[in-house]
Formats: sequence, structure tokens, C-alpha cells
Amino acid sequence: MDTSRIRINEERLWGTLMRSGEIGRFGSGGLRRLALSDADKEMRDQFVSWCRDGGCEVAIDRAGNIFARLAGLEDLPPVAVGSHLDTAPAGGRFDGILGVLSGLEIIRTLQDNRIKPKRPIEVVSWTNEEGTRFPYYISGSLVFTRQKSLEWLYALTDDDKVTFGDELRRIGYAGDVPIGAHPFDSYFELHIEQGPILYEANVPVGVVIGGAAVRGVYVIFRGQTAHPGGTPMRRRKNALVGAATFIAAVNDIGWKFAPIGRTTTTRINVWPNKNGTIPSYAEVMVDMRHQDPDETKRMYVETMAAVRQCAQETGVDFEVHGEWQYGGSDVVFDQECIACIRKAAKALNLPTMDIYSQAGHDAYPVSRVAPTAMIFCPCVDGLSHSEAENIIPEQTWPSINVLLQAVLARAER
Amino acid sequence: MDTSRIRINEERLWGTLMRSGEIGRFGSGGLRRLALSDADKEMRDQFVSWCRDGGCEVAIDRAGNIFARLAGLEDLPPVAVGSHLDTAPAGGRFDGILGVLSGLEIIRTLQDNRIKPKRPIEVVSWTNEEGTRFPYYISGSLVFTRQKSLEWLYALTDDDKVTFGDELRRIGYAGDVPIGAHPFDSYFELHIEQGPILYEANVPVGVVIGGAAVRGVYVIFRGQTAHPGGTPMRRRKNALVGAATFIAAVNDIGWKFAPIGRTTTTRINVWPNKNGTIPSYAEVMVDMRHQDPDETKRMYVETMAAVRQCAQETGVDFEVHGEWQYGGSDVVFDQECIACIRKAAKALNLPTMDIYSQAGHDAYPVSRVAPTAMIFCPCVDGLSHSEAENIIPEQTWPSINVLLQAVLARAER
Repeated sequence: MDTSRIRINEERLWGTLMRSGEIGRFGSGGLRRLALSDADKEMRDQFVSWCRDGGCEVAIDRAGNIFARLAGLEDLPPVAVGSHLDTAPAGGRFDGILGVLSGLEIIRTLQDNRIKPKRPIEVVSWTNEEGTRFPYYISGSLVFTRQKSLEWLYALTDDDKVTFGDELRRIGYAGDVPIGAHPFDSYFELHIEQGPILYEANVPVGVVIGGAAVRGVYVIFRGQTAHPGGTPMRRRKNALVGAATFIAAVNDIGWKFAPIGRTTTTRINVWPNKNGTIPSYAEVMVDMRHQDPDETKRMYVETMAAVRQCAQETGVDFEVHGEWQYGGSDVVFDQECIACIRKAAKALNLPTMDIYSQAGHDAYPVSRVAPTAMIFCPCVDGLSHSEAENIIPEQTWPSINVLLQAVLARAER
Repeated sequence: MDTSRIRINEERLWGTLMRSGEIGRFGSGGLRRLALSDADKEMRDQFVSWCRDGGCEVAIDRAGNIFARLAGLEDLPPVAVGSHLDTAPAGGRFDGILGVLSGLEIIRTLQDNRIKPKRPIEVVSWTNEEGTRFPYYISGSLVFTRQKSLEWLYALTDDDKVTFGDELRRIGYAGDVPIGAHPFDSYFELHIEQGPILYEANVPVGVVIGGAAVRGVYVIFRGQTAHPGGTPMRRRKNALVGAATFIAAVNDIGWKFAPIGRTTTTRINVWPNKNGTIPSYAEVMVDMRHQDPDETKRMYVETMAAVRQCAQETGVDFEVHGEWQYGGSDVVFDQECIACIRKAAKALNLPTMDIYSQAGHDAYPVSRVAPTAMIFCPCVDGLSHSEAENIIPEQTWPSINVLLQAVLARAER
């Protein structure tokens, strides 16, 4: 059978997305579906039910990652397609979700057309990609690829000191598939760009050629509590002033490396943080990104100099409590998989653009254990991690048909 | 009897202070005794028990203010002496406490010497002076003086949404004395300076001649959540950057008006305040003080200009959600009461210094309903609202003997 002419069912996929958009609704049309919350459980249950109805066998590993397999003609490692169903704290309806539900739509489309590829196709939903509630992004895929241990994952805690392990068991998704026992032939991830490049250029398909180099630092400023009335300026050690000066400096560094570079302070916690007392403690989380790892390193060096200078100028102590990095040279997408995407787009007569990912994705760790590629589609104004996140359906379907065709091609390998 | 030669029992007072210093111990020698907490109840119980043992009758009003009365020869309105027993979140052992327990020591000294003045003497412990847990400082004395209503007080909530009224009843200190039914002849408050002036000048007695003019603003910055990776600098509306820039500007204003003026951001709350999302919301509490109300007004005007400018420069919206002011021309201490203090210090051969209070005190509202005066004593390095807050006993007893003699003189009036 000539599979090159089959296309996804757009209305069905839109309906599936809109049903997902009801689970964990938040604010003006957004989602708050934090990992391992009740809403996450409800969405997982819905997803598993859809997959079973679509003829898949569902397996769940010990990290709670879900694998829904449509059997192939041969019992080979599958071509996997996936992303995540959890969201940012004030997230949108498409980030991650579009990648998972496009995988489901591909399964359904194959069933509609009675197509059985040589290899199995698997739709994957990774656990806790966002790292919002349990702070470590892409943790499900990091464990799946053995870059982090299951013990590490289970010991992550949320702000209420509830552990990941307890919550995973509570929602019934601590599965029995052992870590490392589930090989992929290859992995494809479709995702909204979460940036404005494709949207502004009006290009429907982004071929992701790499990931920005991301570095993060977690800095603590320490001063001394004192009375805001009795304490003259010269005698103060105000940790919040140290942190605020640093946050402004971090933002300036982002501008200096713009338009490609960017910096963000996402989080600040202050103590005592009460009226009537000068704060003695402030911790901030800073994130720096550039697609050129050397530039990210320069941003990091400038950020470290800024910590020192801000602390000195404001008379407080500081401590770099943690650092992390990902992306950059750690992400190596597979040329053959990328070629499948380019070829599919060409066959569909669609313009593509080579693009770097600025966000972290499950495809990053997976790229280290299986041939991997990513497709980006435009999102309105490049806005993501926001209730206002949106896609324009007609601008979105082309990329999903590219995914379908790329997966089908790879599955015959 | 010639009462001019009697003195407090220094060792007894020190022992009383050290016993208080065990109730709500926190950190390295400090106290965390938040209003209406279990520790506050324990301290209140201890104080009431001490007062009854000292021969006082104890009355409690509906705001939880405690009045311990030593009867006088005549049934006249009392000379009141007091301060507060609650502390800042990481507070010291003397702020407020010294004023209340000095009052108790005066009662005990009078009993030792079998002195019965013409007027009753009352030791007063005001509820929730700090406003740490239930954010409104000096709220017990504000209600006592009818500048705020009992309904307003009972409706204050802590960060866990527990109401003041429920907690006051829980700890058993919702008394039966109606508001406004308890007149004073006069009110004296002794307090550590909470600033370095007396300590640096090595002067044992500060005669408080006024209160700094304090203004506060509560500002909210609003931006838009977005992805820290995908969102270029030019597209951001980062509320935390708006707030941080403002906090730094507020600090600069403090320096501009130094050494007398001072500004503080005490509190910041950010949302979502999670990794992986640009914050869309930040609220900050700012406090400005100067002993010249015109200068405080200039600081306020500059602060308001800074809010506008910081919001504009960082591309976020702002809203001044609340403003407050106290001190300044609202505080009028009584010249006769002040004369009692000067005369007592002179008789004791003690140098004094006229001084403005930079902190708010219960004496401020009380000054509007009764002749009032305040005495400051030095505290080490001027440090207060800190676990490290300390006094040097020998530098402290002189001011308490001044208080004793001033109160005795006034009580014969």
C-alpha cells in the first residue's frame, strides 16, 4: 500500500486536544497540570484509555513513563513518538501535549487505514518533564536513559516535602517495566517551538538541529536581620537588596547577549519576608541560554562576576549553592532521522527551517540512547508556559503529517 | 518617705528577662514569639502570674491587651508603663520585653519598699506590636485608642489565613474589658533604641522627642508568564525584573537621604516562582523613614517616580495596592511627662540625649489619648529585630531607674 497519501484526521486530533484542555483547567484558557497531581492522574487515565481503544498495549515503567505500543509486522524495537502531558504552573494546552496526542493521532490514522508497519510504533508520555512541582525538568526521560537513578527520582520533593515516589504510587503510575529494559529503534518528538521564529517567518515545519546550551545557577545571599527603622543604611546587610541587584544584573546580561542569548531569574525565596524586618536570606534561581555553548559560557562567567560584585556592593555574603547545565553539545540528533523529516516535508511540499531549540526536551536525554529527531511547529507569538499559549490549527497540521510520514518511513527500516 | 533613693533590683530584673528569653527561643540566642502563638500565650501566662504574685490585679481587654494594676492610695486613673511581649520573626530578647518587664520590676521595687503612690501604677502589655504574624504593627494599642476597630483587628489574618480573633480566643486572651473603658493618667514607655546613636555616644538615657515620619507602599508588578528558553529578551514582561529593579532603586533612595533617611523593601512575593517560567506577578512592601516629615514626603515622591520608571523600563504594569503612614506629626509626646524624665535623670546625675524614634511604638497611638513620653536605652551596635540583639546590663539599669523615678513623680500628681 502507498502510505504516502495518508493524512491525520485534523478534527479528531483537535477534539482530543480540547478534551485534554479540560483536565486541569487554569485561568483564562490555560492548564495547571503539575506532575503526579490529581489532574495529571486524570489525564494519564484518559490517555491510557484512548491508547487501549486505539488498539495499543500499554506498559508503564518504574518512573511512570507510559509506552503505548501498536504492534508491527515484526517484533522489533519500536519507532517511538512522544513528549509529556504535565504542564508549567500557569501552562498552556499544547506544550508537550501536542507531541503526545499527535502520536496517538498517528496510531489512530494507521488503524483507520489498516496499515501495519514493519516495526511497532510507540506513543510515549514522559513523567515530569516540566520539573515545576518536583524541581528537576525532564526527569522521567533522564531516568529512562539512566542518566539519573530511580532512587534520585523517587527522592525528589515538592514544596510541601511530599516525595515523588509517594505521589507516583498514590496516583497508581509506579509501573513494573524495569528501567533500561525498553529499547527504542528511534525517537521522534514534535513540539511547539515555544519561541517566535517559525510563527514570525510563517514556516510550518522547524527541523531541530540542536539544543541551546543552558546553564543554571542557584545563588544564596546572606545578610543580617535588623530593624528597618533603627538601622541606618551604612549598617545594613540586606540580603534582598543583594539579590535584587543581582536579578537586575542578570537581566542586563541577557540583553547584552540578545537577540540569541537570554537570561532569566525564575524564582526567589526570601527570609523572614515579613514586614518590619530587613531580610537576612535570599535565594535565586538563574537560567542562561545561547545556541552557541561558548557564548553561554561567557554569559555564565559574567553572571558569576555579577554575583560577586552585587554581593560586595550591597555588603552581603553569597554562596553558589548549585549549578547545572544541559543542551549544547550533549544533544546530538540523528542525521538519518532528520533526513526522514526533511524528506517527508519535501514530499508534502512544505517549507522547513533549521532551528535550535531554546527549551529543554525529553528528546535531549533520549538522543543519547536512540537515534532521535525533533520537529517544531509554530505557536502564536511564540508564547508558551502561559495560559495564553495557543496554536493556529491550519499552521499546525502540516508538521504532524510530516511526523506521520517520517515515522512511517523509519518504521519500515 | 523619700522615694528618691530607691532603685530597681538589677539582678531580679535580669533574671526575669532571662526567663522570658527561654519562651520562644530561636536561633543563636534570639526569640521568635509571634503574636497569639503558643509561645506568646506561654509568655502572657508567665507575665500574668508574675504580676499577680507582685500584688497586682490583672485585667484584659477585648484586644488582648493586659493591664496589671498596683493599687494607689486613691482610685484615680493610673500611671501606665508598658510595651509589648511579642517579637519579630527572628527577634531579640529585649525589644518591647524590656519595657514591660521594667514595669513589672517597678511594681516589685515599690512592694519591696512598701511604697504606695497616690495613683495606681499599671504595667501594660500590648497585643501584636510587631505585626509580624498578623500584618499590622501596634494593632493592640491602635484598637485601645480607638484608631482602629475591634472588628478590623479580629479580621486580620496570618499567612495561613487564620484570623486574629480565632487565635486570640484560642489562647484565652480575648478579655472582657470593653475598648475605651480604661483611661490612663499618663503613659511611659521604655524601649531599646533599636539604632546605634546612644550606643555609639555612650549615653545611657535617650529622651524621645518625636517619632520619625514613616510611609509605606505596597506595590504590585504584573507581567506575563512565558518560557525562559523560547522567549527572547525583547518579548518579555518579567514581573520579577520589574520588582528587582525597583527594590534596587528604593535602596538607592535610602542612600540619597542618608544618614537620617532610610528605605527598606521588607517583603517580596512572586508568582509562579517556579523553575522554568518567567514570573508574571511580584508584590513588594516598601518602608521609608525620616525624622523630618518633609524629607519623608520627598522620599515617597521619588519612590513613586521609581515605580513608574522601573515598570516602564522593564515593560511591566504596576499598581500601588496600598499605602500607609504613621509617626511624624501624629506623635506628640507630653512636655510634662518629658520633664519628669529629664528631672529624674538629672537627680540621678545621668547624661541624656534628645532623640527621635525611627521605629513605631505603642506610645505613638497612646500619645493621642493620654500624656505620653518615651525613654530609650542603648542596645549593642544598635542591632534589633535580630537574634543578635543585645543590651549591656550596666548601660541599661540607669534608664530603668529614671523610668521608676519619673513614674513615681507623676503618680503623686
